[in-house]
Amino acid sequence: MASLLRRAREAADGGGVPPTSLIFDCDPGVDDAIALFQAFGAPQALDLLAITTVAGNVGASLTARNARLIRQIAGRLDVPVVPGCERPMVRPPVEAGHFHGESGLGHLPIFEPEAPAYPGHAVDFIVETLMSRPEKTVSLAVTGPMTNLAMAMVREPRIVPRIKAVSAMGGARREGGNITASAEYNIYADPHAAQIVAASGCPLVMLGLDVTHQVRATAERRARIAALPTETARAATNLLTFADEVERRLGTGDDPPQHDLCAIAYLIDPSLFLTVPCRLSVETGSELTLGHTAVEFRLAAGEAGNARWATKADAQGVFDLLTETLARGPVRPA
Amino acid sequence: MASLLRRAREAADGGGVPPTSLIFDCDPGVDDAIALFQAFGAPQALDLLAITTVAGNVGASLTARNARLIRQIAGRLDVPVVPGCERPMVRPPVEAGHFHGESGLGHLPIFEPEAPAYPGHAVDFIVETLMSRPEKTVSLAVTGPMTNLAMAMVREPRIVPRIKAVSAMGGARREGGNITASAEYNIYADPHAAQIVAASGCPLVMLGLDVTHQVRATAERRARIAALPTETARAATNLLTFADEVERRLGTGDDPPQHDLCAIAYLIDPSLFLTVPCRLSVETGSELTLGHTAVEFRLAAGEAGNARWATKADAQGVFDLLTETLARGPVRPA
Amino acid sequence: MASLLRRAREAADGGGVPPTSLIFDCDPGVDDAIALFQAFGAPQALDLLAITTVAGNVGASLTARNARLIRQIAGRLDVPVVPGCERPMVRPPVEAGHFHGESGLGHLPIFEPEAPAYPGHAVDFIVETLMSRPEKTVSLAVTGPMTNLAMAMVREPRIVPRIKAVSAMGGARREGGNITASAEYNIYADPHAAQIVAASGCPLVMLGLDVTHQVRATAERRARIAALPTETARAATNLLTFADEVERRLGTGDDPPQHDLCAIAYLIDPSLFLTVPCRLSVETGSELTLGHTAVEFRLAAGEAGNARWATKADAQGVFDLLTETLARGPVRPA
Amino acid sequence: MASLLRRAREAADGGGVPPTSLIFDCDPGVDDAIALFQAFGAPQALDLLAITTVAGNVGASLTARNARLIRQIAGRLDVPVVPGCERPMVRPPVEAGHFHGESGLGHLPIFEPEAPAYPGHAVDFIVETLMSRPEKTVSLAVTGPMTNLAMAMVREPRIVPRIKAVSAMGGARREGGNITASAEYNIYADPHAAQIVAASGCPLVMLGLDVTHQVRATAERRARIAALPTETARAATNLLTFADEVERRLGTGDDPPQHDLCAIAYLIDPSLFLTVPCRLSVETGSELTLGHTAVEFRLAAGEAGNARWATKADAQGVFDLLTETLARGPVRPA
Repeated sequence: MASLLRRAREAADGGGVPPTSLIFDCDPGVDDAIALFQAFGAPQALDLLAITTVAGNVGASLTARNARLIRQIAGRLDVPVVPGCERPMVRPPVEAGHFHGESGLGHLPIFEPEAPAYPGHAVDFIVETLMSRPEKTVSLAVTGPMTNLAMAMVREPRIVPRIKAVSAMGGARREGGNITASAEYNIYADPHAAQIVAASGCPLVMLGLDVTHQVRATAERRARIAALPTETARAATNLLTFADEVERRLGTGDDPPQHDLCAIAYLIDPSLFLTVPCRLSVETGSELTLGHTAVEFRLAAGEAGNARWATKADAQGVFDLLTETLARGPVRPA
Repeated sequence: MASLLRRAREAADGGGVPPTSLIFDCDPGVDDAIALFQAFGAPQALDLLAITTVAGNVGASLTARNARLIRQIAGRLDVPVVPGCERPMVRPPVEAGHFHGESGLGHLPIFEPEAPAYPGHAVDFIVETLMSRPEKTVSLAVTGPMTNLAMAMVREPRIVPRIKAVSAMGGARREGGNITASAEYNIYADPHAAQIVAASGCPLVMLGLDVTHQVRATAERRARIAALPTETARAATNLLTFADEVERRLGTGDDPPQHDLCAIAYLIDPSLFLTVPCRLSVETGSELTLGHTAVEFRLAAGEAGNARWATKADAQGVFDLLTETLARGPVRPA
Repeated sequence: MASLLRRAREAADGGGVPPTSLIFDCDPGVDDAIALFQAFGAPQALDLLAITTVAGNVGASLTARNARLIRQIAGRLDVPVVPGCERPMVRPPVEAGHFHGESGLGHLPIFEPEAPAYPGHAVDFIVETLMSRPEKTVSLAVTGPMTNLAMAMVREPRIVPRIKAVSAMGGARREGGNITASAEYNIYADPHAAQIVAASGCPLVMLGLDVTHQVRATAERRARIAALPTETARAATNLLTFADEVERRLGTGDDPPQHDLCAIAYLIDPSLFLTVPCRLSVETGSELTLGHTAVEFRLAAGEAGNARWATKADAQGVFDLLTETLARGPVRPA
Repeated sequence: MASLLRRAREAADGGGVPPTSLIFDCDPGVDDAIALFQAFGAPQALDLLAITTVAGNVGASLTARNARLIRQIAGRLDVPVVPGCERPMVRPPVEAGHFHGESGLGHLPIFEPEAPAYPGHAVDFIVETLMSRPEKTVSLAVTGPMTNLAMAMVREPRIVPRIKAVSAMGGARREGGNITASAEYNIYADPHAAQIVAASGCPLVMLGLDVTHQVRATAERRARIAALPTETARAATNLLTFADEVERRLGTGDDPPQHDLCAIAYLIDPSLFLTVPCRLSVETGSELTLGHTAVEFRLAAGEAGNARWATKADAQGVFDLLTETLARGPVRPA
């Protein structure tokens, strides 16, 4: 544990390694917002090129607004927020407002952010960034439907071999589905996009419900964050309290899982997760199992698989990382 | 544990309760054979009306022969063996010979059984038994593809409300698939049959990989059985040794699971398993997820569900029951 | 034309050829009733072993009753009526009462037929007849959902190579669907059964909407039948009048097609239809195209295809045959 | 006929009506090339804003090159050629080289066109053109897979209500499929794109095989074109001769259909086609029927449908239009 945390700290501090150039594609969303605080607050580990947003948990105009709002709280106006696709590729939209509140950010006080969105489209931004930067130097974290990345891959297939890594929150194997019996929300909301990314051949790590259900904001973990004197911790506490209320309302008896945080934590410190190579396909044809992630670990001899699947998380390590990050956030004015 | 075992013993002894009238539908198969020894050896708990057989792990003529062979070892020539469907309903056959050996019974010495098969068809036998016996007095255990039962339901829908219970080995939720990424063998081998049974409204308990992977023949459990002086224990040891060799050959690092035994053990002592009501549907339309069991625990208010899904097994209890049963088998001639 | 009719007459008279032994499987239904009159009235051409019935246009108890009622009008109590499956194999039932009236026979006066149904099940009857009669001597006409025949094939695969021919009304290629955009009713009502029959390898001729829409009961043709002094012609006129009213009500502007008659006419005189070899598959997986018949005429070199597809009908020849047959029916009591 | 032709001529001459602003999206392709000559040669009727190209009949680099080559022969360097998507949205690519030759243009002599492609992407061009021009003033003709238009609709949904009309070559109802039993090539090659366009709500006219098989380049029609002294007629003759050879090689016994020409002819003179409102859906989920166009003419009362389906073509009118257009092309240097 200690060594894990030390490694995580070193990673967050850079540890001599140059930070990962990252496009963070998300649909905030309560848990995306926590993940955004983690991403904004770890400049030693992550060189955030942009936040790109997509329709998902709530509509596209809200996710773009919410990303800008979180950015302002985190004091990172240097990072552009680039709005992206307003609908899934093929299927009709499926929102998840009951998990995220009407605004998408639970009870967080909503204000109109000062800085505007970037005057371009996320799909173009992803294509242009990957085509203009050196090969294999830019990673993507995707914590919403994979629409933007898949659209970029169809529009410009040459980006695929230029991607360093994709760390995506999505899918489920052991945990069954959360939106239907057999599908997780992000994949269900745009299964065709997920299948495009899975079939592309890019280096892909999937952090699905199998691990995100291991990373829960327990009362103790929430209390540690609540005790911090920073603006980001205050907002995070507000969001985690809302998430906890949702679980109570649903009567799950569980603490709120931190899905999207996992995709960022993995990029900061991959050792926080155990991942296994797999053959991954996404169901796009059947209504019953739409968005199901078929994950096969039994690869043929010599078969590399097309993704790595996260099976175990060091939940305490993930929260230690988050807590330290929030502790360094901008302090509230007295 | 002790109380569980005591209850299991009482159940096996009848405990004042009349035995369950049972049709055991199977495709032996190594693990079916173990389940057959359990079923044949518990007359206080199970009034075995017939063994019906079906194409599955191996072809239909082999499964019928194997059932008769196991019957002879168990000394239960009073129980008819009724051959049934030789193919799945809609899809092409899928055998599983690599798990069961060419004969279907691993290394067990094969002989031509003395007593013949029953001169009728399993589908007719199931229909006639359910229509002629008092309503809700006959249960079925199904440990192969559900072809026979589903065919009986289509041929004579009036049997459905007359069934007391169906205890079926099949499906997977947490455990993923064993024949494909997302499907368990029995359901994959005849998904349409499974969907017919699931949609029929009969009382259905599914014992899938989620529990059968908990019920493993460890070296210690195998040793206890190997030490028994009975013919059935000797044959069971032979079968379990083969199953163990299969696991080693596949390099799973696991002890061999006893899938089919669970469906019989459940009927003898339901308290050996934790089961949860669910909405169960079987994928019949998509090649990728064919035979996947979509299991939804989050029922609507007032929704009863169409099945119970087994989530936890008392593995030691199941093996204690099996061991005691085998201990009472016919003793080998000196 | 004249030669066609002569041939049809010779065929109906036997023409030296022994009559075809036939099981006629149907779901009467207005147009099935017309086909029944044709089948009952052509003993020189057809040795009717039985009428088997199935749920389809209306429920199973009505189709069995209606077959007995038509049998009584035709004076053919020597032909057993054997009730069969009361539901489709996998999918939920789809009736078509709006085309056939509440009774299934339009406005035909309904009475309780004197002679009872045969005390057995159609699936068993089909199996036993095919297994006990010499190989390749028994044909089947199927003018409803193919449930009975498919169930027989699954229950006893050995019947398949013993079938002389199957003449089935079902499917559509050029004509699109009649129950959905892409599916014809008989196939849609039990697509799995149709796929089982298509994949079985039995000699199969499909008379789908492409030809049955060519065989329409025009006013002139109806008038010729109405002028006949027989009981069967009177009943047929009643049925055709109802069918005509349905078309007017739907505003199709067309005369009523005689779907099921084609399957019987084909067996009496195959030269009434042009048929082409094809590769036939039935859609069973997609909701949008469920029951669509995928018909490929472009066979590979040496590929025989698994069915013949009827593309053209000699409509006048079919009606001449029907009219002559009805003319010979029992004369109404004065 | 005469009046039709007159109307067509008037339309081609503008007839007082301002020309239709058009983006022509294609994958040339032999029959696309003929359609391109029609589009380039009718400036009174069509204000060609751009040719956009897509992977389809042959790969994306060839379709873009071929569009530029045809443009040069037609002497229309004023029209930009904008390369677009190099792959279908979700499914793997399916080319159709056997119908179009290795180059995509049959035996037409290939040269490197002088003028370059437009330095932008077709998806962006479509979005920008529709967003910057007045609403409902720009139409699209699509004669290849609908990838570019669908991608534009996902990237910027606001374009949908701004589209004046889409005239698309694709699909089949009466004619069955040409690439599989039930699917036409353009739809099969990107069924998800076609479904996106069909579901978008834009004004859509589908010119599928039902009409394009009526518009065949008979020997007489080819001879009329061959007699013309223009460069475009010479190239068209070369292309039509190749298409005729393909039909002979396949042994169809038919003259070569002019699929793509229909989509352009319709925009010049809609009266050349009979079109009927329909409810159109594209199969995206089933392998058997992938790309099938489910076309329902029986709309509910008050239902407008989401497309018009072409059922009849004035083939001679289409060829008269083409012949007159080619007659006005640049004359070959003596």
